[in-house]
Amino acid sequence: MIDLILFQLFVLVLMARIFALLFESIKIPPLVGEILAGIIIGNTFLYSFLHLETDIEVLRVFSELGVIFLLFTIGLETPFSELKRVGRTSTLVAILGVVFPFAFGYLLIISLGHPQVEALFIGAAMVATSVGITARVIKDMGLTHSIEARVIIGAAVIDDILGMVVLAIVSGIAVGGTLNIIDTLVVAVLAVLFVLAVIYVGTGLLPRARNKVKAKKRTGRSSLIKFGSSPLALALVLCFGLSALASYIGLAAIIGAFLAGMVFAEFSDTMPVAEKFEPINEFLVPFFFLYIGISVKIGSFAEVAILSLAITALAIVTKFIGCGLGAYKLGRKSATVIGVGMSPRGEVGLIVASVGLGIGSISSAMFSVVVAMSLLTTLIAPPLLTYTFRRTASGKSMKFS
Amino acid sequence: MIDLILFQLFVLVLMARIFALLFESIKIPPLVGEILAGIIIGNTFLYSFLHLETDIEVLRVFSELGVIFLLFTIGLETPFSELKRVGRTSTLVAILGVVFPFAFGYLLIISLGHPQVEALFIGAAMVATSVGITARVIKDMGLTHSIEARVIIGAAVIDDILGMVVLAIVSGIAVGGTLNIIDTLVVAVLAVLFVLAVIYVGTGLLPRARNKVKAKKRTGRSSLIKFGSSPLALALVLCFGLSALASYIGLAAIIGAFLAGMVFAEFSDTMPVAEKFEPINEFLVPFFFLYIGISVKIGSFAEVAILSLAITALAIVTKFIGCGLGAYKLGRKSATVIGVGMSPRGEVGLIVASVGLGIGSISSAMFSVVVAMSLLTTLIAPPLLTYTFRRTASGKSMKFS
Repeated sequence: MIDLILFQLFVLVLMARIFALLFESIKIPPLVGEILAGIIIGNTFLYSFLHLETDIEVLRVFSELGVIFLLFTIGLETPFSELKRVGRTSTLVAILGVVFPFAFGYLLIISLGHPQVEALFIGAAMVATSVGITARVIKDMGLTHSIEARVIIGAAVIDDILGMVVLAIVSGIAVGGTLNIIDTLVVAVLAVLFVLAVIYVGTGLLPRARNKVKAKKRTGRSSLIKFGSSPLALALVLCFGLSALASYIGLAAIIGAFLAGMVFAEFSDTMPVAEKFEPINEFLVPFFFLYIGISVKIGSFAEVAILSLAITALAIVTKFIGCGLGAYKLGRKSATVIGVGMSPRGEVGLIVASVGLGIGSISSAMFSVVVAMSLLTTLIAPPLLTYTFRRTASGKSMKFS
Repeated sequence: MIDLILFQLFVLVLMARIFALLFESIKIPPLVGEILAGIIIGNTFLYSFLHLETDIEVLRVFSELGVIFLLFTIGLETPFSELKRVGRTSTLVAILGVVFPFAFGYLLIISLGHPQVEALFIGAAMVATSVGITARVIKDMGLTHSIEARVIIGAAVIDDILGMVVLAIVSGIAVGGTLNIIDTLVVAVLAVLFVLAVIYVGTGLLPRARNKVKAKKRTGRSSLIKFGSSPLALALVLCFGLSALASYIGLAAIIGAFLAGMVFAEFSDTMPVAEKFEPINEFLVPFFFLYIGISVKIGSFAEVAILSLAITALAIVTKFIGCGLGAYKLGRKSATVIGVGMSPRGEVGLIVASVGLGIGSISSAMFSVVVAMSLLTTLIAPPLLTYTFRRTASGKSMKFS
């Protein structure tokens, strides 16, 4: 048994790495290569050669852990204290950039006669911007201090949280199985309460407790401080604990992981863990993208090719309009840059779709649609952003709120 | 399913960490705490509360990966080039320190009427010194440059390799299922050939190829160098690949991992990975010790209490005599320190025993005996070593070969 698992790991890591490097060398985000490696493995002789039709359990667990750690790390980069500093424009950009794609995505799928839960998931998958790709383009162009960049990064922080709330509500509805107003409200309230409770305890109560402990430390030893001597273990405990709790109350496990990351971000001064998660993520996260690729059935792509293109176009246009409207007071040129910069969906859309696939709320064909949408927006955004930035970037001062 | 796994991980990491910290604070190696946490989980209501009677698969895989990464890291600290510099005394200490415990351990178990394969495994589990514990005591006492310390560290390097060869042969025999001279010879030759082939390719051919690539690098780009830009992925591929290969030819997977580490150690200048494995190991290795503890049935301890004490005494005495004889020309006092310093078995004995348990070659009761032996030698060695070092340490110059 362990022989087979080791052999699977050997082939999977090798394939993912080769494709990630190939794509990186032509400036395409490595996750595209990892998904493609997965598609190749899932649709060729490799699938049965690796005995994945019967022994996919370990890969599935690794993929789940990979996405949980990925969300924890994203949460780690989203400290609550940062949220307070994000400006009004960013907030408006984020909210409109969530409302438009969700509403139009949902309406399109419903109008095609799909089940409501599926439409909700597709809408949710179109919500959250994957800011990593945009951030990289901005950094490469040396425009980190432009107004547009500041608004985009700020909006992406709020966007992540809104995306998690939308996913919490949608997955809660899906698990509940019904779509009547009262149940939906209960789930929505539960999801919001969970998020608020964790934020309140993690960023209000705990830091205060920590300060008390710090004061105590001057007089004697403290067991909390000692646990802090191995921050990675504490981070793992919090991450697994909140993920399991989120799962238990019917939300997606990754929401707990994301919140755990946000809580830990408040303690990054005394317990830095971001660096420690880097190699762990380098090991585990590719399994998530591999698994996405393996879950894509090439056959089903053909059926949904037109729908994929339609959803991709809708994802770009609605995000562009929503975010552009939110940023309109900065002038048309800046609004254009921001609208384009918010368009890549990358991993976040995939995460939402795989939650939906996992609980059986979306079909394998619709999953392929979301994968196509994520890949295409990720591929299109960087060149488009470079082009619009060059034409319109203001280079205004970074002071902005 | 993932809810349960996350909850298991939450409880397991939390328990392991709490016990490791408790023991660390009273200067006992944390692995003792992790094993104890496992014994508590495996022998109380927690076992069924966590559904481990049916869903132990993930924990088992994590434990296997933990020990594979642990062996890779030990290999990483055992570069082949180091072996050439180890002195004649260290070599003699290592060889005699392997022969005595193996022979007497084997003879004791055989004389008690146990099967030959079981006796071989118990002998093999008594072979390899776990130098980590001794190294820590030496470091704490500031005696790293004493002759005794140099001999111990040098002997431990060879000891690890001999231990792996013994395990390779024993597990090969066990998998073959027979114990006639020809089969044993075939297995032994295969094991030695595998080890030699990897060492030859990894430390002879590859570094030469690398130097050629380096020369080429001045003129153009090279794909090998580019793979080297993500050394962790390359290390994982090599580690999984050689582990699977070792497994495939009937050796223990960890032997492949150990050799992969040795090979990678030769490239530590251009591709440093030791630091990257630290957090991965901090996450995964405790699962190995937890799993060991969970595999121990308290009930079976009672049956084998006397045998456990006998094997522990034999492990200490035979190592003391073997290593002491090897170091005799340094004088009786130094030989005493070296004999005591080589006595802890720690994780290496446990690894051997869990390979034996995994392939059904040793019984659950005999597994408990090895766990007791490992725990007791680990607990006894530090105070004993401190005492003998204080009484006899020579403080002679570090020049020694």
